[in-house]
Amino acid sequence: MLLSKILYKTQKNLPTDEISLNAKLLLQACFVKKEIAGVFSYLSLGLRVISKIEKIVREEMNAVGGQEILMPGLTPKQNWLDTGRWGMDVLFKTTGVTGSEYALGATHEEMVTPIAKQFINSYKDLPLSLYQIQTKFRNEERAKSGILRCREFKMKDMYSFHETEEDFEIYYEQVKQAYINVYNRLGIGDNTIVAVADGGAFTKKLSHEFQTFTDAGEDLIYVCEKCNLGMNKEVIEKFDYSCNVCGNKDLKTRKAIEVGNIFSLETKYSEAFDLTFQDKTGNKKNPIMGCYGIGITRIMGAIVEVSHDENGIIWPESIAPFVYHIVALGNSENVSNKSKEIYNSLTSKGFDVLLDDRDESAGTKLKDADLIGCPNIIIIGDRNLAENKIEFKTRKDNKTELKDISEII
Amino acid sequence: MLLSKILYKTQKNLPTDEISLNAKLLLQACFVKKEIAGVFSYLSLGLRVISKIEKIVREEMNAVGGQEILMPGLTPKQNWLDTGRWGMDVLFKTTGVTGSEYALGATHEEMVTPIAKQFINSYKDLPLSLYQIQTKFRNEERAKSGILRCREFKMKDMYSFHETEEDFEIYYEQVKQAYINVYNRLGIGDNTIVAVADGGAFTKKLSHEFQTFTDAGEDLIYVCEKCNLGMNKEVIEKFDYSCNVCGNKDLKTRKAIEVGNIFSLETKYSEAFDLTFQDKTGNKKNPIMGCYGIGITRIMGAIVEVSHDENGIIWPESIAPFVYHIVALGNSENVSNKSKEIYNSLTSKGFDVLLDDRDESAGTKLKDADLIGCPNIIIIGDRNLAENKIEFKTRKDNKTELKDISEII
Repeated sequence: MLLSKILYKTQKNLPTDEISLNAKLLLQACFVKKEIAGVFSYLSLGLRVISKIEKIVREEMNAVGGQEILMPGLTPKQNWLDTGRWGMDVLFKTTGVTGSEYALGATHEEMVTPIAKQFINSYKDLPLSLYQIQTKFRNEERAKSGILRCREFKMKDMYSFHETEEDFEIYYEQVKQAYINVYNRLGIGDNTIVAVADGGAFTKKLSHEFQTFTDAGEDLIYVCEKCNLGMNKEVIEKFDYSCNVCGNKDLKTRKAIEVGNIFSLETKYSEAFDLTFQDKTGNKKNPIMGCYGIGITRIMGAIVEVSHDENGIIWPESIAPFVYHIVALGNSENVSNKSKEIYNSLTSKGFDVLLDDRDESAGTKLKDADLIGCPNIIIIGDRNLAENKIEFKTRKDNKTELKDISEII
Repeated sequence: MLLSKILYKTQKNLPTDEISLNAKLLLQACFVKKEIAGVFSYLSLGLRVISKIEKIVREEMNAVGGQEILMPGLTPKQNWLDTGRWGMDVLFKTTGVTGSEYALGATHEEMVTPIAKQFINSYKDLPLSLYQIQTKFRNEERAKSGILRCREFKMKDMYSFHETEEDFEIYYEQVKQAYINVYNRLGIGDNTIVAVADGGAFTKKLSHEFQTFTDAGEDLIYVCEKCNLGMNKEVIEKFDYSCNVCGNKDLKTRKAIEVGNIFSLETKYSEAFDLTFQDKTGNKKNPIMGCYGIGITRIMGAIVEVSHDENGIIWPESIAPFVYHIVALGNSENVSNKSKEIYNSLTSKGFDVLLDDRDESAGTKLKDADLIGCPNIIIIGDRNLAENKIEFKTRKDNKTELKDISEII
């Protein structure tokens, strides 16, 4: 795409009403627009990143047998009464012209369980795993940290249904591995740890968080380097500040952002909605349920927090808005033609390519390329073209080398 | 995919609380689940159709230079006060824990205009065309007609910004053609007509609807067969029941569903938000705006209304949940192996294939295949396999022929 044709404008001044670094960079680089505290629009560049994150998450959820569905934002009051959660502070509520009251979906156990009930009768219908990538609404008292904690955000939420505790535990481990795959593919695998969240290995109820280390994180995680395992504050207090697997007392503390969580719902919701199945012996039972969340838009913010430098964002290739960013310097016909030739060549090979064709100074264009943060920057100017060369910059290490045009095309 | 692994269950009884045919068929075939009147969940089969409709719409909007963005559902009260629309009955409203009031986006002029304002300063920044595929909320008094008129639905809404009326009119015609492309690709081109909606050719304000003929339609359209043009009731009254292009008085009336609309917003919203640009002579002006909508989920319902028979849905190939539906009859090893071989062969060629591997009777499986409505049904049974043949049924005309397996693989 041409930079002149997408929503982008060099911003002279950093926004002053946002203190978090992810919001500053995403606003300055025109990935998002802030609408209200905790509510953002996703502009052309930002939506490209979101779509790529969604694709990776979708592929990994499909790989563990998740079926994608789409549940609504308007959810009926009765379902929340059935589970005793209508009073939750976090619910936005609205009333229809007919007088019916609705909650805006902050989470979807109240909707997915009745769906499962329509399709589950027998143990033969289990296991079942349903997920959606959908907009959540949460009535947060204080929206903060840019797009990390929002009042409206995109989330992947998956719910599984099982015949036995054993079957649930096997699936839980599969999903845990799928989550690790997601973070590896998103380029934050090395910074992300599995953390025991709720009582840990010695209690029945499984619960883990995926925590990405960054000083911008709201959470404090205790890390056992022997086990490569994190623990949150509640867990560690129960275990007298030692690793709840190996007993190691030499734990490091690190700040982190929660980028996903998985946990058992036991039979809380299957009981609430009287969701039962007939087991092999003909007895009626409630399926064990699991819940697995990833904040899609939050991930975008978390990645900006862990992957940037003083000049801007540094996107991992897998979710960069464009893999190549071509900077055409000056306005000679030669630069313009060669830029388009390289643009067409890379595009025809299936790469996402951005061409900065704007009538801006070299300094502005190079600064904007660093800010936007595509992984490969191709700089095309008259001087190098005279020798059939272009400058090739990798944004990750900011190293530049001269390459023959033939190497690129 | 395997039918045993997706949300599908043979429904013995038609739902009784829905009178519209699209809802009956979509509910019975497990494409959707009704949550509240006018609010549906999209199940595995339904979401596949929705995603394919979205892909076609997205490609055609990109082709006319539309930039995809994503605006929020929670929209600030102030923006609606600025345009005088906070009092609209159709708005769902909610209040945050901080006391802030929001409308749930029923349409997005109030959000897109301030976004455009951030990027438009000069005539050089025009034209600009922004669209989203996003969830809309409308506080309808009476939700009816299945998924045709909902309280929550997915919509593609595009907004364009222009320097001059002439530029707007040229773009408007391009989008009109893009819409025609969309309906052709969705398989309803032959049933869909462009209808003049608002004063017509002799007024300044352009406004057209795209109307798909079906007796289930809520709208009555007057059709001039000479011009291949429709007119709605308001327009035709102004023109004394004659074609407003050729004057033809022999107009036919037909019932239809509105599957899209395009219209001028003139400068109503650019004025309301003080969105201006500097023209070539240095004067400040408000851009002319256009608005272009397609109801994504409504389209799914409209297609069911126009494309079905007494046995079920007949999906056009471009948006069918699966292109091939393999019905494995009986449970012999030979049938099971050959079914999987054909399934793997077609899948590896990139087709979307559904294999009914359930332990159900031949009658149930064949009935369910007709109900689900995939365009090509491959029926595999022992008797035909003995001669290396399978039955190939095209759902559109319900014609069946024997084919050699080698023709399929």
